[in-house]
Amino acid sequence: MNGRTTPKSELEARISALQSLMAGEGLDMVLLVQNADLFYFTGTIQSGCLCVPVEGEPVYMVRRDVKRARAESAISEIVPFASMREAPGILEGHGISPPERIGMELDVLPVGLFERYRKAFPSAQFSDATPLVRRVRMKKSPFELEIMRRAARQVDIVYRRAGEMIRDGMTDLELAAELEYAARREGHLGLIRMRAFNGEMLFGHTFSGADGSAPAYTDTPLGGVGLHPSFGQGCGVKSIAPGEPIIVDFAGSVDGYLVDQTRVFAVGHIPEELRGGYMDMLAVQERMRELAVPGAAWGDVYEGCHSLALEKGHGDNFMGYKGAQVSFIGHGIGIEIDEYPFIARGFSDMLLEHGMVFAFEPKLVYPGIGAVGIENTFHLSEDGLERLTFSSEDIVIV
Amino acid sequence: MNGRTTPKSELEARISALQSLMAGEGLDMVLLVQNADLFYFTGTIQSGCLCVPVEGEPVYMVRRDVKRARAESAISEIVPFASMREAPGILEGHGISPPERIGMELDVLPVGLFERYRKAFPSAQFSDATPLVRRVRMKKSPFELEIMRRAARQVDIVYRRAGEMIRDGMTDLELAAELEYAARREGHLGLIRMRAFNGEMLFGHTFSGADGSAPAYTDTPLGGVGLHPSFGQGCGVKSIAPGEPIIVDFAGSVDGYLVDQTRVFAVGHIPEELRGGYMDMLAVQERMRELAVPGAAWGDVYEGCHSLALEKGHGDNFMGYKGAQVSFIGHGIGIEIDEYPFIARGFSDMLLEHGMVFAFEPKLVYPGIGAVGIENTFHLSEDGLERLTFSSEDIVIV
Repeated sequence: MNGRTTPKSELEARISALQSLMAGEGLDMVLLVQNADLFYFTGTIQSGCLCVPVEGEPVYMVRRDVKRARAESAISEIVPFASMREAPGILEGHGISPPERIGMELDVLPVGLFERYRKAFPSAQFSDATPLVRRVRMKKSPFELEIMRRAARQVDIVYRRAGEMIRDGMTDLELAAELEYAARREGHLGLIRMRAFNGEMLFGHTFSGADGSAPAYTDTPLGGVGLHPSFGQGCGVKSIAPGEPIIVDFAGSVDGYLVDQTRVFAVGHIPEELRGGYMDMLAVQERMRELAVPGAAWGDVYEGCHSLALEKGHGDNFMGYKGAQVSFIGHGIGIEIDEYPFIARGFSDMLLEHGMVFAFEPKLVYPGIGAVGIENTFHLSEDGLERLTFSSEDIVIV
Repeated sequence: MNGRTTPKSELEARISALQSLMAGEGLDMVLLVQNADLFYFTGTIQSGCLCVPVEGEPVYMVRRDVKRARAESAISEIVPFASMREAPGILEGHGISPPERIGMELDVLPVGLFERYRKAFPSAQFSDATPLVRRVRMKKSPFELEIMRRAARQVDIVYRRAGEMIRDGMTDLELAAELEYAARREGHLGLIRMRAFNGEMLFGHTFSGADGSAPAYTDTPLGGVGLHPSFGQGCGVKSIAPGEPIIVDFAGSVDGYLVDQTRVFAVGHIPEELRGGYMDMLAVQERMRELAVPGAAWGDVYEGCHSLALEKGHGDNFMGYKGAQVSFIGHGIGIEIDEYPFIARGFSDMLLEHGMVFAFEPKLVYPGIGAVGIENTFHLSEDGLERLTFSSEDIVIV
């Protein structure tokens, strides 16, 4: 653990921010059980439930492992428990009266598990606490930003390795294996957390030429063929050939935080049309930099950037090919890869604020040929937009 | 994809087995939405919903990507759709009357998503279809077994690589990175699917000495320290020293199927007490081989093996250390790592049957010293228990 635990002051600020939102929604209590949220609000992930009352100290009920919870978490009240039936009694023992309105993570909590919580608090009303949790988590603290800057340094090392490795004839899988290996040796946790149901993702996507234009079930602009229909996304076993765009979309991971970056490589050369498309995507990124100011609606940033892509003639191939296009260009990122804010269609009443961090990934698909695009992770700082991922934005010709 | 799609006859047999169980439970329809189940019953994973009526052909409603669904799946009825509100109409168009009793995967389906299905079928009664799905999936076909045998060959390559790689002074993370790299180059999908809520797992666990005795939140006998509290399981950055047990618990993955294997390595030598413990775990495995016959209750196999571990004096350190012990020794395995059957406490009315495949992993923890144990994946064939994973069971001294 190297002493890199989350400081108590950090946890207190997060819980207090959640409690303010709870008061606004009239919630007496929020019960958190999902790994990413547990890590954010406790600094550890142990099997159990964090009970946050609208006022006062939270209680972390831990099934396994209590000793590790106490060693890793700065939460004061860590209590062993075996069954949710004990929960009301444990809370009462901490001076917390039976909650009447409880919030839970209803976007991720399975129905079967939810029923057990309902039985433990039979007279309470339950509602979805995830929008509140998302709103707290979307603003990153200096402590979190420092970790994400380390993740950006890790990802830069991976991309430099890609520049050294890529060669004519190697397969996309071989390239992916090399980059994953490089990342793991730099301390990458090996895990990309995605909140969405069925959201499965490896370190990233690595594909060359036509394989980069294959649509997939994933909620991403590029999908990839994958190794098999049992996991039909990401790299396949196609061999890299000269003159093809090679997409490397890779997430860095340090101490539980992610950054996301995409760059384009090619052996020898890249077709002029694709180079032109890539320049257009850089222009879309520049447009975003003008629009992404505090107070701007997420949806307006999306529309402004989307219009520019249309003006440039990319109506059919921006963010996927016609029929398989996604309706976002950017996504918040931190502990999970699909956090607030969404730079996406709609969201006209959700506004950008200082402290938000998001990945922005304008991309073009050329069916049968490949894909190009750029992705960086940005922090909306008091001094404007800070680009956390810092690798060169030139297409790398090897 | 290399033409390795699931044959139509295979899908038909699976769906027909599910329909028999549905009839027994009085269900009109099962709606399947989770990735692992979609892969099992359709041969692909696309964003959407597989509707299985109690009689007749299933309808796969696909949001994205319909073309890939048609290319990868042998299901005849693949229909594009955008919202669950269209579902009743689509089903009626296929001559399927409005279902009154619907089963869904309530152990994994989030509450928020479930509500949308309830609204689409407002007068239907919903219940949990997962026990039925588990019962169909627990019996592997010759087609599935052949894939799992290939996964066993992959994992053997990884373990031979471990024998070549392990040396004094290398860190557990370095070893893990090497083995993951070797596995990926052999076509490992890079993904270990776990059905349990919050179930996060990499390729496996690799740890040396005392780090192997750290308890964790995971539902596994050994946990590991991990790289950081944000993912407190698996390898840490401890350096390997002579005379320590090094645990390599690694899952092979081929075409969507897993096998699970654990072996022990050591640099130079291993303490006699631990070698003795390891021999006891081999004896527990032998006891299992005697008990695991068709018709035996899963719980009885567990109790028989557990008693032997107690007889050998391991009451405090079998399957975790006192206070953090798990109550299973084996788990079904296939597309997910936590399938039926569970060789676990309870389960007195669930019986072993031909065609079942399970991993069996008797393990001992020595606090502050490390862990030892064995794990193999077994198939209960018509000719007795077939050990799918075939690497040597000797402790490997390097």
